[in-house]
Formats: sequence, C-alpha cells, structure tokens
Amino acid sequence: GAGAEVADFVSELARDAEARLEGARGESTSFAGGLLAGPGAGSRAGLCAAAVTDALHRSLLAEAFAAVCLVRIRQGPAKAAEAVPAEAEDSNSDGKKKKKKKEKKKKGGIGKGSEVVLAYLEAACAEGQGGDRLNALCPAAEGEGAAVGTAIDLPRALRGLSKATDWALGDLGKFLSALQRLIEANQPRRKPKIAKGARDMLPDQMKIREGVFSKVVSVFKKHGAVSIDTPVFELRETLMGKYGEDSKLIYDLADQGGEILSLRYDLTVPFSRFCALHGTGNIKRYHVGKVYRRDQPQMNRGRFREFFQCDFDIAGTYSSMVPDSEVIKVMVEILTDLEIGDFQIKINHRLLLDSIMAVCGVPEQRFRPICSAIDKLDKSPWEEVRREMVEDKGLAPEAADKIGEIVALAGEPKEMLQTLKSGTQGALLDLRGHPKAKTALEELTLLFDFLEAMGALDRLSLDMSLARGLDYYTGVIYEAVLLGGNVGSIAAGGRYDHLVGSFAGKDIPAVGVSIGIERVYAIIEAKLKEEAQRTGVPIRSTDTQVLVCSIGNGLQKKRMEVANLLWSAGVASEFGFKPNPKMGDQINYALEGGIPYMVLFGEDEIANGTVKIKDMAERTEVTVGLSDLVAEIRKLIQK
Amino acid sequence: GAGAEVADFVSELARDAEARLEGARGESTSFAGGLLAGPGAGSRAGLCAAAVTDALHRSLLAEAFAAVCLVRIRQGPAKAAEAVPAEAEDSNSDGKKKKKKKEKKKKGGIGKGSEVVLAYLEAACAEGQGGDRLNALCPAAEGEGAAVGTAIDLPRALRGLSKATDWALGDLGKFLSALQRLIEANQPRRKPKIAKGARDMLPDQMKIREGVFSKVVSVFKKHGAVSIDTPVFELRETLMGKYGEDSKLIYDLADQGGEILSLRYDLTVPFSRFCALHGTGNIKRYHVGKVYRRDQPQMNRGRFREFFQCDFDIAGTYSSMVPDSEVIKVMVEILTDLEIGDFQIKINHRLLLDSIMAVCGVPEQRFRPICSAIDKLDKSPWEEVRREMVEDKGLAPEAADKIGEIVALAGEPKEMLQTLKSGTQGALLDLRGHPKAKTALEELTLLFDFLEAMGALDRLSLDMSLARGLDYYTGVIYEAVLLGGNVGSIAAGGRYDHLVGSFAGKDIPAVGVSIGIERVYAIIEAKLKEEAQRTGVPIRSTDTQVLVCSIGNGLQKKRMEVANLLWSAGVASEFGFKPNPKMGDQINYALEGGIPYMVLFGEDEIANGTVKIKDMAERTEVTVGLSDLVAEIRKLIQK
Repeated sequence: GAGAEVADFVSELARDAEARLEGARGESTSFAGGLLAGPGAGSRAGLCAAAVTDALHRSLLAEAFAAVCLVRIRQGPAKAAEAVPAEAEDSNSDGKKKKKKKEKKKKGGIGKGSEVVLAYLEAACAEGQGGDRLNALCPAAEGEGAAVGTAIDLPRALRGLSKATDWALGDLGKFLSALQRLIEANQPRRKPKIAKGARDMLPDQMKIREGVFSKVVSVFKKHGAVSIDTPVFELRETLMGKYGEDSKLIYDLADQGGEILSLRYDLTVPFSRFCALHGTGNIKRYHVGKVYRRDQPQMNRGRFREFFQCDFDIAGTYSSMVPDSEVIKVMVEILTDLEIGDFQIKINHRLLLDSIMAVCGVPEQRFRPICSAIDKLDKSPWEEVRREMVEDKGLAPEAADKIGEIVALAGEPKEMLQTLKSGTQGALLDLRGHPKAKTALEELTLLFDFLEAMGALDRLSLDMSLARGLDYYTGVIYEAVLLGGNVGSIAAGGRYDHLVGSFAGKDIPAVGVSIGIERVYAIIEAKLKEEAQRTGVPIRSTDTQVLVCSIGNGLQKKRMEVANLLWSAGVASEFGFKPNPKMGDQINYALEGGIPYMVLFGEDEIANGTVKIKDMAERTEVTVGLSDLVAEIRKLIQK
Repeated sequence: GAGAEVADFVSELARDAEARLEGARGESTSFAGGLLAGPGAGSRAGLCAAAVTDALHRSLLAEAFAAVCLVRIRQGPAKAAEAVPAEAEDSNSDGKKKKKKKEKKKKGGIGKGSEVVLAYLEAACAEGQGGDRLNALCPAAEGEGAAVGTAIDLPRALRGLSKATDWALGDLGKFLSALQRLIEANQPRRKPKIAKGARDMLPDQMKIREGVFSKVVSVFKKHGAVSIDTPVFELRETLMGKYGEDSKLIYDLADQGGEILSLRYDLTVPFSRFCALHGTGNIKRYHVGKVYRRDQPQMNRGRFREFFQCDFDIAGTYSSMVPDSEVIKVMVEILTDLEIGDFQIKINHRLLLDSIMAVCGVPEQRFRPICSAIDKLDKSPWEEVRREMVEDKGLAPEAADKIGEIVALAGEPKEMLQTLKSGTQGALLDLRGHPKAKTALEELTLLFDFLEAMGALDRLSLDMSLARGLDYYTGVIYEAVLLGGNVGSIAAGGRYDHLVGSFAGKDIPAVGVSIGIERVYAIIEAKLKEEAQRTGVPIRSTDTQVLVCSIGNGLQKKRMEVANLLWSAGVASEFGFKPNPKMGDQINYALEGGIPYMVLFGEDEIANGTVKIKDMAERTEVTVGLSDLVAEIRKLIQK
C-alpha cells in the first residue's frame, strides 16, 4: 500500500542521487586531482564541487524522507496524527525530565536526539513551502495534494524537506547546532558502548582464560621456547603485501602527523620483522598477544575483531624437518592438554600442491587462484569448487577433473605417502616424476619419521585438499580441526622460508603454528559453566583463601590488623568493608566466592587473644591463639 | 656566507607560502564549507582551491631548494662540481648494483631514493629555462647570473625548480611514478623499522618483565582482586573530556567506515566504562595492560608511546576510607616487594586543595589553572610557580604568597594533621573553619588510622604541594616517588567518584592506583643485568631443565624419543637440531642458557638401555637405566 509506494519513491530518489554522484566523479578522474591542477582548473573544480553537493543533498533528502515515513508507519495512522513537535533544547530540571521520559515511551522508545530530528523533519513536511530548487528535485507530474500515506502530502512534504535539508538556506545549520547541544548535554545518560566486534572479559571469564593460557604457555616453555613481545602497531609498510586479499581487513591508525601505522593482523609478520630488525639468527619463541581484523564479527561463533593468538615458531637454519616436527608435536600436546575433544591435524606440502597443479595442466600463473579454490574444499562440495575452477577461473575441464581425483586423497600419513609414491598411471604417475613433488615427499617421509619418534604421528592425516590461504607459506602446511565439531580450524601453521628475508634481504627459514585460542576458549567456557551449574560449585574469580570476619560492631580496624597478619604471611585474604557486617552476609560472601576459610572474632576472642577458624567445606570450627593463626591457616591450605 | 644567504632566502619563501595559505584559509572560513555551499559558491571554491595550490607549490619549491642547497653544502664545492645525475630506474643485475653502492658511498651515504630525488632537483636547477609562473615566484630584482653558492645560479635554479615542482607541467608526475617504482623495488633491502616510541621485548627482557608482573599481580591477588580485560580501543566519545589538555595525545584509528575509535590512554576510563556498561556495582579488580600516548618518547628515561600499566581499583559504596586505605596498602606492598629502593608516598586531598585556594582568595573559576601550577612544585622552585600564578594566571600576589605558605607544608601524616587542625592565625586558621577542609581532615584522620592498622602508615607524607594533573579526582590523591632517585613518580592514583557516573548516569564511587611499570622495570633490568655481569650467571630466558645430547652420529630420532619421555613427564627439555652435534657445542649451549642438566647417550648407552645424567653445577655425572631417567631427573630438580 502506501508504505511500498513511499519505499519505491525513496529508492528512486536515492538512485538518482547516486547516479549524479557517479557523474560528478566521472567529470574529473580525481576530485583532489582537479584541485591540484592549479588556477586554470579552478572553475572546473567548482563545477565538480557543485555536482557533488547537489548529489549529496538529494541523498540526504531521500534518507530524511525515508526516516519520517518509517516512523509514521511504525506509529500507525492514529498516533501520527498527533505529531507533537518536541523542542530542540535541553531540559535539566528533574520534573521536565520525567515528563519527557513518559513521552518517549509513548513514541515507541526512540531516543531524545532522534525525537528532535523527527520533530524537525515532521515540521518541515508540514510547513513545506515552494523553493527554487524544489522544481528540479520534486517532479511536477506528482501534482499538488497527491497523498501517499494517511498523513503525508508528498509534494508538500518533499518541498519542506528539501528546504530543511538544504545547507545553503541556513535552517539546517541552526538545527544541527541545537541537536549537537542536546546530544552533548544528553551524553552522560546514554548507555556506554564498546567497539563493534570487541568484548570485555568479566572476572570469571578471565579466570578461565588464565587457565587456558597457562596450559598453552606451559607446553611452549616445556619445549624450551623463549618469549618476546612486539608493539600492537607496526608501520603500515611492514604489513603491506603479506596477506593477499585480506589486507583490506587491516586496521589503520589515523594520520596524526608522523608515521603511518596499522594494528597488527597476526603475530607471524611482526615476528619476522623482529628477526630482521634484531638480526636474530636462531630462535624458538612463543608469543601470546592480541591481533586485529576488521572482519564481520560473529561473536557467538568465536570470531572477533580483537582476539588472542598463541604462536610458537622456530626460525633458523636447521636439519630438514626437525623444527617442523617439534612445532607439530607442540600443537598435538597443547590440543591434548586442553581436553576439548578428539582432534585431527591435516597436513600437506606447498610443493606437493604446486606439482599437483603442474601435472594436472594448470598454467603456473594460475597456481594461486586455483590453490585458493582448493582451499574451499573444507566448506564446499567438489562440484562447486570444480565450477569455480572451470567457469570463474577458466581452467580446462579435464585439468579440473585430474585435480579432483588427486585432492580427494587423504588418510593415514604413511599409507598416503605409499599411495603417492607408487602411482602407476595418470596424474599420480606424473606426480611421482615431478621434481618438486619428489622433494615434498622426501620431506614428509622424514617428518613422519620424526613425529613417530615423538609419539605425535597418530593425530595426523595427509590431506591433498589442504591448501591454506596465506601467501607466505613455502613448505609443509597444517591445520587442526575438532572431530565431530563445527568450529572450523582451531590451530594452523606451516613453513615460511622467505618472510624474514622480505624485511632483511637475507632469508631466515622459519616454521610455526598459531593457536586460535578464542574458539578453544568458547568451548572450555561452555564446559566449565555447565559444570559449575551442575555441581553448584562456582567458578572462582579470586584466589582468596581467608575471609576475615567480626561478630558485633565497630571492629573494622581489628579486621584490618588480622588481614594484615595474613597478607604479611602471603595468605590471600579479604575483610568486610562495612562497619558492622552481619554474620549471615559474611557467610554468604564466602560461599558465593568459594572462599575456603573464615577467620572470626568478637569482643570475647579479642579479650582472650584468640580467633576462630571456620572450614567452609568441612563445616568445622576451631579456636586458636592469634599468634598461631598464620601457622594454622598454612597447615589447612597445604592439606 | 653563501649558506646563510640561501637559508634566509628559503625561509622567506616558506614564510610567503605560509602567508598565502593562511590567506586562502581566511577567504572561506572553511574550505569544506565552501564546497558544501552549493553551485552558487562554486567559483569561490575554485578560487580558494587555486590559492591553496599556489601556496602549496611555493612551499614545495622552498623545501626542494633547501634540500639541494643542503646537500651541496655538505658535499663541499669540489664534489658539487661533479654533479653526476643518477638514473631514475631500477637496476637488478648484480654488477650494476655493486657499482651503485660505490657511488653511494662517495656521495656521503644517502640512500638510492634520495639520490634519485637529488638528481631530479639538480637537473632542474641546471636546466631551468624561463616559465610563466616563475616571474611571480622569483623576484626579478635578483638579476640573471647572481650566483649564491659556488655552483648555484639562483634565478636559473629557481626557474628550473619551479618547473620541476609544478604539478600542472607533468614532469613531476612522471618523476614521482619513477621514484615509486624504485622505492617499491628497493623495499626488501631497507632496514625494517619499528614504530616511534614503541619497542620490542627481547627474551631476557621478557623474563625480567614476567618476574615484575608476577610480583605485582600476586599482591593484587593476595588482596582478593579479580581480573578483567577491556579492548585496546574504545569509541572515541568514551575517551573525550576525560584527560583535559592531554587529550591531544590520544591515538585515533583511521575512519575506515563504521565507528570512530581511539586507542586507550589509561586503564581507569575503560574500567569506568566497563562498570557503567555491565552495571557492576561493587568490584575490586586489577588490570595489567598496554596504554597508548602520542607523547614525545624518552626511551632511556622509560617514557614510551606504548607502555604497560598495572591498575588496582575498588569501585562501590563502602565505609569511608576503607577502600582507600586498602589501595594505598597494596601500593606500599608492591613497592616493597619489588625491592627497588626506599620510597615515599605523598598524599593530599582534593577538597583540602580546593579549600586552601578558597581561603587564600583564589576565585573558584581559577581553581584548575592554579592547581595545575601547584602541581609543578615537584619540578620547579616556588619562585617560578609563584611567577606563573601571578604573571600568567593573574592571581593577586598576596593570594599567591598565602598559598606558598601552605603548600610548603609536608611531613609525617599525624603531625601534619595536627598542624592543619590547630592553626591559630592567618590562612591556617581560616582553613580549619572551611567546611570542605573539615571533611578532608576528617577523612585523612580516618585513613591514617586504617593505614596504621595495616602497617602501611610509615611510608606516607602528607604533602600540601601534591596536586595531580587529571581532572577526574574528587578525594584523596597520592603519588609514590623513589627517594634519592630521579625517575619521577612510579605509582599514582586517587579517588574518582563521578567517572562511572559520567557514563552510566548513576555515580559509582571508586578509588584506585596505577603502577608505572616501565620505570620500575628499567630499574630492575639494570640491576639484574649488572648482577649477571658481575656473577657470570646469565639471566635465563627459558625454563629448560634438561638438554638431551648424543655422542656420535645420526642419533636425531633417539634424541627426540628421549626428549619425548621427559616432555610426557612434564620436564622442560630441549634436544639438538643438528644431525651430528659436537659435544663441545652441546655443553656450551647448556652453559650459556643456564640449563642445569644434560642427558647424554651414545651407541654404547643405547645398547645397554642406559643414559648419563650430567649435573652442570655440581660437575657430576651418573649413569641410569632409561626407564629410571624420569624419576632420577625429578629427584634432581626437586633438590
């Protein structure tokens, strides 16, 4: 009905604005270029500016009109008829505030600022008088009085809106200043927001995270890794050309004079820059740190714009496959220690992929696009990937079919090696003879041998469909997935022999793995919270061992003295902050926080120089001399 | 001589460009405003654009001319005469590269890119022919041939430069493209850089930092604090209006569509935003995180643009001064545990400062500026601060003198309280009677009482000159300084009762402290490195307990197997990555890394099913069965 007609008109207006904007752009290949072209080009720049202004005005008009209509439609015909124009001024007295709140509720929960904007636009719709520019903006064909909605006179409304949104006529400026004042005064009462795709960690979450990190880091340390740290921002040029298409997801810092900086996108490129800068030849390092990606967040699936990565890398010139095998061993140990369920590590080799493509007849310059199509096999069926190869990427159908045959191969590492080494016909035979494949198969043979020695081979699957997105890998690549889960890869990595060299001129070969801790964390958090629910034992967010309590009034200072005794002995303790805390409240506090012991005293105990120790789990209570308190508590804690 | 004359001319040219730019700005109050003013204003925008272009061109010309002259002056007259124009193209063959390197050395170490720029400008100076715009740019009065430097013909050079830097003539565009190609090809050979004011942490530094953090955090935990985390960026509006003048030091993120974000400047404002967002009523939390300030870095004095803060805060409505006293107790414990030398905590109260200013006759609207003058007393003598108050801030001299009398007061807390409470004449008498001072003195009395109960009073000094810069403090304020050191404050904080309310509408009172860990860290790093030097015991950057070594060739897999035995038992172990490591190299590796035990075997031991354990400190060696290895090593480690 009316809604659809309005919607059509608005989108037409918007399309028109867009076309004009496009036209304005076309007029000068670059607006800035026009400005820089000097005085001769001045009038041209002016024309260009006028076209842009006009297009912007039309676009604004369309938006404003759509907003008014939308609110009207939501309110329904009856309420729209009221149309109370709110005042564009701040009201600080409490009485007025309350009245406004009621009004707001009536209007369906729109904010004070929106209310003012709406009133301005409503008034413009209602009062619209003719204007010079309107004739161009609002087609005469519509005719005066042709109503669209119940309460909207379209041409009149458009005339009014056109006037109200025209910068040159001055009303818009005045209105915006008033709105700004209102918003500024309103600021304290707005609900604070957090950046999109980012999150706060609450105390119980932090405790869980601490546990996860501690497990991960203890494996890194068990393997003799050192730790390093790099800044959260790098020079933009450091990150450029490292991530292929994903570069568009990099967060840039504003140019505030000085260097052009970006937030780090991963920990691998900063690590390589680190090695190049400090001339680090051999290093086995771990790094736990936040990285930043302007991706579409999916918070409930563990995809954030700010998230942690736990990286373990070995850089340096070593015997073939020795560092690679330790990296994979570390990955296996961590995923085992985290107890998040059965997992599998898919492994492949970039040289093997290259030679597969070569023997299947893929031209060398199409290796990357075809490789990225193969990479989609974990999400899409072969038919879809084949279509992409043939239709989108122009690969010969017979080449695609050959690839399809090989990338379907996956299985127990040593068996798969045998299959690949013993091909007697077709692409597999050709593959055996390809020099790159030969190198890859030799390396994989050695790697599997080493992994067997380290007891980490049984988690592996040699999988010809694993391709990995990033450009910088040069050798083995791998990716861990949870079996029976649907959380995507939880750890991944590979060998990158030329990344350090891209900074230093001199290559330092390197291999590493990155644990995607957010997904792991989400699984563990859910598990622990379910457990807490089931057992009734809360997840503790503090380490407090003792709550110092008093019976009776005014013993704040005494509680502090006793707590200080315990602190001095290294015992984590808290005391009540209220002057006269009730016993029931103190017991509840201890129970809710999972604090195992309470130390109690009243005037009697103080007179006797004693305190009571209450064991919350055992539900026992003993009285000890104050001078023995520390020793007694230590004994209890060590139990 | 010639140099000074050139310099004068350049700065004149630059001044002229600046004046024109200013003029262009004045013509339209806002350039963007001009553009938005619609078609009628188009030609005006064009004029404005032309003026800006002209001014920019003049500015560029001045820079270019200065650059040429500077290099000429550095090279001296003889070398300048050579003036070999380099080619603006890349050369990839090795032979050519070497030749270029030699040339570069001759030219005094300027880079390839700079060399090309210089060549372009040199050529422009030499070939400069008349141009239309030159007459305006280069005053005719100079006359043809009036040489300034030995090899520079000024008017001719300027004519050439003007042409070479004029975008409209096309040469500049071609040149810049060539330069861009060169720089891109050159990229891999440039030394990688880290952002200004930021730093990498090397493994031994990380180990020291880990130790410092662990000490600090263990005190936080001992006091029952929970941990939270917030994103490294906040919406810009969250940070606005919180830091006074220092807001200009906030790092903004680029507007890439979506929200306007900034990097956090401290942890206090994000904590307050956190409390407001999550409706956190009562919380005692710690937060260790990086904060960002676009300050002038002084790396050797511990001032960075990215640095850690360790914050401890208690938010919630509690008995007066109870949380305040625990925060100060935590501060004292941490600074004591860190063992960085004797320290003092200066304390004051914002209400006391306000009443001091009131009774001394400072008008209320001048409280902030006078307060920030008082804040400088830790760096400047009273005379200087008095001058600022009277001359810069228009305070009556007698008011300044009264303030001077009071802010000179500092000393043992209880004595000072007595002094302030018992004033019998002048400003001190007035102060006693001031209601705000009364509140402050009552609070301080209670605070000192509590601190005495917690054994933390003796480090305090009640100091009337402590003012603190930040706007948000509302009650007690404090600052820790190292005695006899010159490192500035190492911890500071205070009560801020309205910061959470500025986000949530509802105030939640809060008090906290921030430990400036970088300065502490620098002191500890220097101490530990000196100790390591003196004792010859290296700072360990790994936790490795055992180095698994082999005697003889080709035992890589066996080393892996033994290491895996140890890893499975949770023993941190490494093995050599070389196929045939030499015994001497393995021993050196263990000694340099401070690894306490070596596990050794050769063909004989393998045949017997034994290994040798070497204790590096005791210089002893025992042979044990491989099946007993884990038990034996555990015994040794636990010793």
